[in-house]
Amino acid sequence: MSSSDIRRPSGRAFDQTREIQLTRDYTRHAEGSVLVEFGDTKVLCNASVEAGVPRWLRGKHQGWVTAEYGMLPRATHSRSGREAARGQQGGRTLEIQRLIGRSLRAAVDLKKLGEFTITLDCDVIQADGGTRTASITGGCVALVDAIRHLQRKKLIKSDPFKQLVSSVSVGLYKGQPVVDLDYPEDSKADTDMNVVIAESGELIEVQGTAEAGTFTRSQLNAMLDLAEKAGAELFEHQREALGVRG
Amino acid sequence: MSSSDIRRPSGRAFDQTREIQLTRDYTRHAEGSVLVEFGDTKVLCNASVEAGVPRWLRGKHQGWVTAEYGMLPRATHSRSGREAARGQQGGRTLEIQRLIGRSLRAAVDLKKLGEFTITLDCDVIQADGGTRTASITGGCVALVDAIRHLQRKKLIKSDPFKQLVSSVSVGLYKGQPVVDLDYPEDSKADTDMNVVIAESGELIEVQGTAEAGTFTRSQLNAMLDLAEKAGAELFEHQREALGVRG
Amino acid sequence: MSSSDIRRPSGRAFDQTREIQLTRDYTRHAEGSVLVEFGDTKVLCNASVEAGVPRWLRGKHQGWVTAEYGMLPRATHSRSGREAARGQQGGRTLEIQRLIGRSLRAAVDLKKLGEFTITLDCDVIQADGGTRTASITGGCVALVDAIRHLQRKKLIKSDPFKQLVSSVSVGLYKGQPVVDLDYPEDSKADTDMNVVIAESGELIEVQGTAEAGTFTRSQLNAMLDLAEKAGAELFEHQREALGVRG
Amino acid sequence: MSSSDIRRPSGRAFDQTREIQLTRDYTRHAEGSVLVEFGDTKVLCNASVEAGVPRWLRGKHQGWVTAEYGMLPRATHSRSGREAARGQQGGRTLEIQRLIGRSLRAAVDLKKLGEFTITLDCDVIQADGGTRTASITGGCVALVDAIRHLQRKKLIKSDPFKQLVSSVSVGLYKGQPVVDLDYPEDSKADTDMNVVIAESGELIEVQGTAEAGTFTRSQLNAMLDLAEKAGAELFEHQREALGVRG
Amino acid sequence: MSSSDIRRPSGRAFDQTREIQLTRDYTRHAEGSVLVEFGDTKVLCNASVEAGVPRWLRGKHQGWVTAEYGMLPRATHSRSGREAARGQQGGRTLEIQRLIGRSLRAAVDLKKLGEFTITLDCDVIQADGGTRTASITGGCVALVDAIRHLQRKKLIKSDPFKQLVSSVSVGLYKGQPVVDLDYPEDSKADTDMNVVIAESGELIEVQGTAEAGTFTRSQLNAMLDLAEKAGAELFEHQREALGVRG
Amino acid sequence: MSSSDIRRPSGRAFDQTREIQLTRDYTRHAEGSVLVEFGDTKVLCNASVEAGVPRWLRGKHQGWVTAEYGMLPRATHSRSGREAARGQQGGRTLEIQRLIGRSLRAAVDLKKLGEFTITLDCDVIQADGGTRTASITGGCVALVDAIRHLQRKKLIKSDPFKQLVSSVSVGLYKGQPVVDLDYPEDSKADTDMNVVIAESGELIEVQGTAEAGTFTRSQLNAMLDLAEKAGAELFEHQREALGVRG
Repeated sequence: MSSSDIRRPSGRAFDQTREIQLTRDYTRHAEGSVLVEFGDTKVLCNASVEAGVPRWLRGKHQGWVTAEYGMLPRATHSRSGREAARGQQGGRTLEIQRLIGRSLRAAVDLKKLGEFTITLDCDVIQADGGTRTASITGGCVALVDAIRHLQRKKLIKSDPFKQLVSSVSVGLYKGQPVVDLDYPEDSKADTDMNVVIAESGELIEVQGTAEAGTFTRSQLNAMLDLAEKAGAELFEHQREALGVRG
Repeated sequence: MSSSDIRRPSGRAFDQTREIQLTRDYTRHAEGSVLVEFGDTKVLCNASVEAGVPRWLRGKHQGWVTAEYGMLPRATHSRSGREAARGQQGGRTLEIQRLIGRSLRAAVDLKKLGEFTITLDCDVIQADGGTRTASITGGCVALVDAIRHLQRKKLIKSDPFKQLVSSVSVGLYKGQPVVDLDYPEDSKADTDMNVVIAESGELIEVQGTAEAGTFTRSQLNAMLDLAEKAGAELFEHQREALGVRG
Repeated sequence: MSSSDIRRPSGRAFDQTREIQLTRDYTRHAEGSVLVEFGDTKVLCNASVEAGVPRWLRGKHQGWVTAEYGMLPRATHSRSGREAARGQQGGRTLEIQRLIGRSLRAAVDLKKLGEFTITLDCDVIQADGGTRTASITGGCVALVDAIRHLQRKKLIKSDPFKQLVSSVSVGLYKGQPVVDLDYPEDSKADTDMNVVIAESGELIEVQGTAEAGTFTRSQLNAMLDLAEKAGAELFEHQREALGVRG
Repeated sequence: MSSSDIRRPSGRAFDQTREIQLTRDYTRHAEGSVLVEFGDTKVLCNASVEAGVPRWLRGKHQGWVTAEYGMLPRATHSRSGREAARGQQGGRTLEIQRLIGRSLRAAVDLKKLGEFTITLDCDVIQADGGTRTASITGGCVALVDAIRHLQRKKLIKSDPFKQLVSSVSVGLYKGQPVVDLDYPEDSKADTDMNVVIAESGELIEVQGTAEAGTFTRSQLNAMLDLAEKAGAELFEHQREALGVRG
Repeated sequence: MSSSDIRRPSGRAFDQTREIQLTRDYTRHAEGSVLVEFGDTKVLCNASVEAGVPRWLRGKHQGWVTAEYGMLPRATHSRSGREAARGQQGGRTLEIQRLIGRSLRAAVDLKKLGEFTITLDCDVIQADGGTRTASITGGCVALVDAIRHLQRKKLIKSDPFKQLVSSVSVGLYKGQPVVDLDYPEDSKADTDMNVVIAESGELIEVQGTAEAGTFTRSQLNAMLDLAEKAGAELFEHQREALGVRG
Repeated sequence: MSSSDIRRPSGRAFDQTREIQLTRDYTRHAEGSVLVEFGDTKVLCNASVEAGVPRWLRGKHQGWVTAEYGMLPRATHSRSGREAARGQQGGRTLEIQRLIGRSLRAAVDLKKLGEFTITLDCDVIQADGGTRTASITGGCVALVDAIRHLQRKKLIKSDPFKQLVSSVSVGLYKGQPVVDLDYPEDSKADTDMNVVIAESGELIEVQGTAEAGTFTRSQLNAMLDLAEKAGAELFEHQREALGVRG
């Protein structure tokens, strides 16, 4: 089957992301609060500032950025049990929140942050594939708002913000590299890759998995090309939401 | 201090509720999905239909309605730990979700529901007092949508819906009975009471607590008068949202 | 059916409580130790005094009163699993112990208690309905003994005791208001209400639930009348046990 | 120091047990319910009969006897946390309940018991040393009552009861072998041994620990002599409580 | 600093792996038991065959391959708490065992495996970096032995084995791409990447993280070149251990 | 059946232990690391030294020795679930690690140890009966190495080592006393006893259980004679491994 015969379920072009929306100040209490939408995937990213750092960082004159991830029980097609009721966060949840935290730390100079902890709570209101990439992309905007809050309150002097960070998924759908997979594609993809990108275009994280079979170096490169292109668009969305120029 | 000297922090009249909004179809996947707003308190109420009943009801030819309650970590002024991360739902959470489930079962004839379970997930997006009363009021609308879904899919024949159920808080603020307390009032109230009301005006649940001191029978009656009046308004909101006449 | 046709399973009059017994010094180690019996319901209420307060009260120059509730596995007709073995206290347990603690704090001036914590352990030896109301009624006597212990040991100077607190259940049994429901009534009651009363006759807590159907304001009032009358008797039992005059 | 210079804190003779009491039918619901007292140590032993056996015994045409052990939080001098609240049974609790179960299975022919499970709940009301030996001794009487219940209800045909089982502690107190240690002795003993004995006088379990230092074979023999003598007395108490002849 | 100035702490060449050893039949009971050593990193990989599949696969006429990962408390420089004692597997553990399971499923045709589950237990005896890559590489050999066991016992007819799978880490150490990082390198690496490779040379999983800063596409390619070369060597070790020809 | 007709499954004489091996420095990181083998039972005993003592010992100018025990999931004939995955250590595990810790504390003068904690991790690599006795015997050698480490580093001045401690199982196999039971014997033994012995020949712990039936005083004595004889051999193995004279 030649790639020209393949159509994405959504009708999108291979290199076309879903509609991206970043709504700031979505809730009132958090220092940064962003609703990020990648099409039908909707994640509320709240950034909370707290004085102090985890025990193992005390006295090191630096701050910390961490993340927690959750999914409302009926964010998905069928209801999944509440992790709080099961008494444990699942492996997938822990893996995703470790990824989000690691990625967003690349946006910040922790030394300049001072002894503050910023926690990003990424809670999925509605899921349609790509919740972790949306979380990173929206979480970064909330993180910037939290940093601005610290600056506005004159709690920190220098600017700890280093660079925007965004993330998008790419994959092989019926052998064809595609960008920003929604659930119907994601559940059938041969290979699924999450890419986290710095504003410079360089890479922060690459996590690619052959769900079935394997993938070649040239397929990897084709997917990374798509991710780079989408990343440039995501940074544009982030800058626009934040009211800054690229 | 005479009651005429007391002003509510919000400037509302003693018998005035906050602005109530009920937005149906807030998310896509749930059989009923309602965002309920009591002023700045915002709760997403998703109703999920599942075939089957809990083990202890099997073979009894009836259905079940239950609820789970959660609060996003930064729904509140300061961040509270994620219950899933702590590995346990707290006593307050369990108490609230038991109340919601009990209240909403009063809206349904479980025999006519057949062997289906409807689970109401009430997740607080933003908290400003009264999250449990908002959950019951919004949850009832989501519950009606879930029942309509079962009817539309011809999964049940007779109509299990019995009556609307709504809930509002009342309390003594500086000795004065007031309705629908927001957080600034709630945190200072002498007495706090949650009332669950049936469309008939009769009572389903009364939970009154003297946070400090005690309250008299006549104060109890004054508070219940306020709750009855507000209940009538809430039923109007519910009927309007559902497109039915009172 | 007129109320004159209805008979309580126990043969008691509608406004008649079960036989109440309060046995002080039931065990040796606790600063207050009371076995409370409401008929066949038997609860051991031990009050333990510990120096210090929970972390969130430190430095506030006040004490704390809290409660824990448990049921021996075979306190009931059929054995229920041990919560320690299940690794979690159930929602009902947490709800009850929160109620007991809240109610008993109304008996004490926490400022005058000083930085001591009094923990009431209410463990049900045998259950026949009304374990939470018995716990509050017996727990209050154990609490007074614990306060006397602090005074005797000259650990506190002023007297933190404010007022006796007692509790009784009322309900609608076959439509008829009755007081102090035992298990056969409780399991069939249309409405079940737990009332916590101060020695002044005013109310501390009212928790009424329509298990089936609804209840009216006038039924509520009839039930509260019964509770007030029974409360007066319970205070008499408490005063007699403590050797004080009303 | 010669043994004649040593006095037990209680003034008891070296081979003298505390006052033993076995009160049957202590609570109403359990098939066997015995309050056992070894002096100030008081344990409520409830035996519950349930149809069926644990999964791993299904289809093996035999029954099961098991035990659970708990201590009320203020059974001891200072309050210890509730295991249900900590979310886990401690190692000491698990070790004791395994011992009780194992010991009481020696009293029963599990084949003749048929597919029933008898669970002994041993809950310590007041502790003063020797709670596990009291639990075994009292639990055996409750077990016999549970077996009689099965026979009376004609649920089993043959008699699964094999022999009485009792237990007592022995130890070295200031180098001197003593029997049935109370808390003041137990907390200072050099060696502590729990012995479970069959009615025949033979041994079921011997658990001896040198808390400090070591013990010799001849000391072991002296302690076992004391245990044998006390065992004979315990069987007499059990038979008397059960109304049977030795 | 030019790359010619950089030396690896171990003195190895940039493209040189540590000494690899695969010892089959390391323990007696498991159907496959391999001690894998990547230098000082030693992992015991036991493959267990069990009839049946997890609940969600029942009736789908296929088998399952899964993995669990653990680290002995003192496998590392300083002792880390035992996960069983903490009552929970950490996020890192869950992430690693999900990776191992996913990677090894690429070695097997689950349909041909039939309704058997093969569980790989990868327990780290001694850690010096690269425990997850060693686990995959050694686990694959144990998996082959488990499959051979099923064939030898004539429990399966067709051969479910598809291809060998191996894994190696690559990274940027002082900006220089290096292969098979030991702990001193790993703890200082700018970028760390784990690559899982199929015998065909194609990729199964790529997980690259910039621990500090970012990495470029050309650095990514240089690292993947190293991984491919090392993978070829690892397959040679696996084939030799298994006594098969490439 | 006379004892001369009974043969042990292994063909060993009644008083013959399995082949004992103690391999020091088995892993690199631990301050003491011993692989102990009692025939096919293999346990890795790692001793870790940490500064400080548990909270309840602080300020008492003494050290602490404790133990944790684990079994690799496939150390046994069939795979058993990982305790870390189940989220709890089982009763058997807790009982064994309490025994190991208690036994090894008899080898050390805790006052002379100073404020250090030595933790023995005993992890069973392969099980064939007697894992707890092997753990104590091997753990003692690792403990001595950890003490030597403290002395070599001049962290303690006086020598806290008091005496070697070893352990062996004895039992009644078909009525015949035998020593060091392997799994085939252990699973069929009528009585099973674990004995912990001090280098002086005196007893530290005796734990005997009649798995079926009972045992007599003379059988107990015959078993203890076997344990004493085997203990002397075990001390010889320990001294040889440590390079010291008896």
